[in-house]
Amino acid sequence: MKKTYRKKDLPVADIRRYLEPGPTVLVSSRWKDTVNIMTMGWHTVMEFSPSMIGCMITAANYSFELIRKSGECVINIPTYDMIDTVIGIGNCTGAETDKFSAFGLTAVAAEKVKAPLIKECYANFECKVIDKHLLPKYNFFVLEVVKAHVATSPKYPTTVHYRGDATFMISGKNIAYPGKFKRQNL
Amino acid sequence: MKKTYRKKDLPVADIRRYLEPGPTVLVSSRWKDTVNIMTMGWHTVMEFSPSMIGCMITAANYSFELIRKSGECVINIPTYDMIDTVIGIGNCTGAETDKFSAFGLTAVAAEKVKAPLIKECYANFECKVIDKHLLPKYNFFVLEVVKAHVATSPKYPTTVHYRGDATFMISGKNIAYPGKFKRQNL
Repeated sequence: MKKTYRKKDLPVADIRRYLEPGPTVLVSSRWKDTVNIMTMGWHTVMEFSPSMIGCMITAANYSFELIRKSGECVINIPTYDMIDTVIGIGNCTGAETDKFSAFGLTAVAAEKVKAPLIKECYANFECKVIDKHLLPKYNFFVLEVVKAHVATSPKYPTTVHYRGDATFMISGKNIAYPGKFKRQNL
Repeated sequence: MKKTYRKKDLPVADIRRYLEPGPTVLVSSRWKDTVNIMTMGWHTVMEFSPSMIGCMITAANYSFELIRKSGECVINIPTYDMIDTVIGIGNCTGAETDKFSAFGLTAVAAEKVKAPLIKECYANFECKVIDKHLLPKYNFFVLEVVKAHVATSPKYPTTVHYRGDATFMISGKNIAYPGKFKRQNL
């Protein structure tokens, strides 16, 4: 039984709360009538405002051309209960598989991009490609997050973090150190 | 009492094992006689071979010019027992503080760069800046890892992963799913 979350809008400047810890994510994309999902581990926050993400997507990946041509994608954050889905999506190709159907996932219309949100994920960040300078040489996309949706609870998701060698680190406890930060360094 | 690790060489193509999960890292740098350390959360693996990392470092940061001018730095992976050091380094500036001295850290000579390794960290990745195309607009460095050192044990470090708002996620258990991956997708 898959989880379904009630979601709220998240200010796009706050996506680092969920992405900076480094979870493995699912990237959904659409170009014309073709939709796909890929598993991605190589991404980083790049700026608060505009809200920016950088990510490396191998050109051999079926999603690469969908994202390059449409200039859009959605970054979805799956949780530990979805580990079989995360691994499965990373081990088949959209050229042969309708991944929404094969993995029983629900495509929900996004607000600002044509790529679909994955309903079963904890968070969904709608993104537009804003810089392709590093695309030819490094397959590196620079994205702007234009709309963010996040589950109303739990406060933090239990995420999976890939290490290679078929091994994931599962996120542990969250600890706040409020007295130890200068305000400008939060 | 700070940990000291016995370390071994790590093939540079294997650094994703420790960086892809998204730990907060300490970046050490040197330009002429000036040495500094900064705390960094915005980084991603970009390639296996050459071994590449991309990272965003605010230009206002004291380390920015040291790294830009020298074209080098070391990415060090601290562990949970060093959380006060990680926070402390992120909340003072190298313009006013000798961070190695202030935080009781040991600078060890690197092999291929002039920036020092931080002995007390679990892993140390010696890096050279190889692409500055995104530096003027986004403060984004592309690095090549030219030498990697990693502790011989434990197999995986307990790392800290910043979420903003003075809150860290602490890395949890590691789980292998060897039967579920195609070899080319490991």
